[in-house]
Amino acid sequence: MADTTRPFNFSAGPAILPQEVLERAAEAVTALRLGGHQPDAPSIGLSLLEVSHRGGPYQAVHDRAIELAHSVLNIPEDTHQILLLPGGASMQFVMVPTNLSRPGRPASFVDTGAWSSKAIAEARHFGEVRVLGSSSDSKFDHIPPVNWADAAGSSFLHITTNNTIYGTEYEDLPHAPEGVPLVVDASSHIGSRPMALERAALGYAGAQKNLGCSGLCLVFLRRDLIDDPEAPASPKFLKYATHANANSLFNTPNSFGVLVLKLVLEWIEARGGVEAMARLNNEKSELLYETLDNSSLFAAHARAGHRSRMTIPFTLNGAPEAERDALTARFLTEANDLGFQGLKGHRSVGGCRASMYNAFPVEGARALTSFMREFERRA
Amino acid sequence: MADTTRPFNFSAGPAILPQEVLERAAEAVTALRLGGHQPDAPSIGLSLLEVSHRGGPYQAVHDRAIELAHSVLNIPEDTHQILLLPGGASMQFVMVPTNLSRPGRPASFVDTGAWSSKAIAEARHFGEVRVLGSSSDSKFDHIPPVNWADAAGSSFLHITTNNTIYGTEYEDLPHAPEGVPLVVDASSHIGSRPMALERAALGYAGAQKNLGCSGLCLVFLRRDLIDDPEAPASPKFLKYATHANANSLFNTPNSFGVLVLKLVLEWIEARGGVEAMARLNNEKSELLYETLDNSSLFAAHARAGHRSRMTIPFTLNGAPEAERDALTARFLTEANDLGFQGLKGHRSVGGCRASMYNAFPVEGARALTSFMREFERRA
Repeated sequence: MADTTRPFNFSAGPAILPQEVLERAAEAVTALRLGGHQPDAPSIGLSLLEVSHRGGPYQAVHDRAIELAHSVLNIPEDTHQILLLPGGASMQFVMVPTNLSRPGRPASFVDTGAWSSKAIAEARHFGEVRVLGSSSDSKFDHIPPVNWADAAGSSFLHITTNNTIYGTEYEDLPHAPEGVPLVVDASSHIGSRPMALERAALGYAGAQKNLGCSGLCLVFLRRDLIDDPEAPASPKFLKYATHANANSLFNTPNSFGVLVLKLVLEWIEARGGVEAMARLNNEKSELLYETLDNSSLFAAHARAGHRSRMTIPFTLNGAPEAERDALTARFLTEANDLGFQGLKGHRSVGGCRASMYNAFPVEGARALTSFMREFERRA
Repeated sequence: MADTTRPFNFSAGPAILPQEVLERAAEAVTALRLGGHQPDAPSIGLSLLEVSHRGGPYQAVHDRAIELAHSVLNIPEDTHQILLLPGGASMQFVMVPTNLSRPGRPASFVDTGAWSSKAIAEARHFGEVRVLGSSSDSKFDHIPPVNWADAAGSSFLHITTNNTIYGTEYEDLPHAPEGVPLVVDASSHIGSRPMALERAALGYAGAQKNLGCSGLCLVFLRRDLIDDPEAPASPKFLKYATHANANSLFNTPNSFGVLVLKLVLEWIEARGGVEAMARLNNEKSELLYETLDNSSLFAAHARAGHRSRMTIPFTLNGAPEAERDALTARFLTEANDLGFQGLKGHRSVGGCRASMYNAFPVEGARALTSFMREFERRA
């Protein structure tokens, strides 16, 4: 694995991007091409970074990114509008209740770890929060069972569909009770496989994992929610309607982030779409889970049946407790020396974490698992 | 002027950037160098866009950008902290009153045009707003006189120190009354000349004009305001304390925007700092104002003594009213054909606007004024 010029990048986010996306993004930083930076189109002689967001050259990028987000991610254009907003998921933790909370109705959440806990904490500023289920007792190693009917009467129902830190993933999006908007934070697995995103009334994803670079958030919301007269009064900037009615040009967008989003979506489309991504992501994650499940040293954190195909935390829990920390450190050092970067786990779980987003190659998963088996034999 | 490969870029923002900044930023998109992307340092083999914001290679960029913002922009480190936040000024229109409004105390503003009007409208969601002065009666062609003592007792006093659309600029930052934090929106002229920014308790600037690219906002605030126990309760994301106490890494920052900020600040420093920028900006703006004041066709919108050195709107008001629109259109078309881009004025003023940020070359101002004189002879 050390014979490639690029290390294998397991970073949790900002995360690995396709080499050709990086090259074309770099090119647009020196000179943007016409028509949304189509290859072989003439250059406009100026950088993407220095042209007006209200001029033709940028607008082509902006409009194409939105069009591709609809088609590649299967977000129906007739029912949902796509917004390109600054910041990431953390800002949506505020915008969601700003727009969707309703007096006298609780907001319902499922607590699946750090990110849903943060969303819950922000929502409490806007009214009562009801936690329908939590897996905190077992270190969030599974998606807790929930009776979705318990969300009836809520102002909205929020789930985090992939949990980076604990490595769990919803297999399917639920159907919320009638009249309750389902809200999904899909930051860390959007675009990784076909998903019934149309079930969500509102969804969001920080772009820096599977969709591009940081500082940009893709939001999609049902058109009937945009100008809901029941929405509470709030500053204009925090209202989805403000951005929706201005096609995400109310204020200057992160234009570079939007270009990278467009390039990533084109890359997914050219590779066969989310179906093709799913095949590769299944292959990569199965390689790793198989190695973990057949190991007496390594162990996956998440329970079978609840496991993420994108973000896989694992520990060296098969080692005697007294030696575990030292052995983990040795594993990480050796891995790093061999070109496996970003494998250190989040402090909440400890151990290791392999984030293998769309652009992560199957060879990387093969190389890592082969190294893990070899390390275990020696350990 | 057409013999250069780059057009003269008068875009109001996103705006012209130095060629060498663009080249180094593009390089970091394909592979980041160590030590905050220092020239000649070895590459890390990964793009800036795909590395963790908590890892060494990005941290070097982040810390250096903040250090340079202090030194290059003369924001004292002992009294003020710098934050690198997502979005631009529009988001600060919400964050400022979220953090600084106090029950029973009005917020004071000076209304100098579109941007201050937007800030005022957002602040009204948080309590009473007092407008101490406005130049709306004369199409915001000057900075209105204000008795600063009238701000006494306010929760804060807000001014927009350069007004892009109407082309006015505060010569000096005022002293706010004792106990009233002065807040400045310096988006469109920060870094253009020495300024007494330390007089501001809080300041902000969208990066996409003089500091880099869009999707990033530089905020500086007095350290005693960060954890003010009197600050109203609010969502965590909207509190300055949240970002200040996490060194702007509470959530994933716009890491590319931060790199471009760092490169722009290095470029300013290498050129002789804000003093050198001021000399060039004076030269460019004097060339244009002299041409405007000596013309019987063209006229500056802003009154002498109130004029911006960065953003200069002008009209063809010397032409008979019946011919004005057609002549303006002809001027803009001819200018565009000669490589003067982005000269069309904002619809609020009409006519033309020349934004000449730091990176705009003196030759561009010379070429434009020479073309204007030639056009006037023909008209």
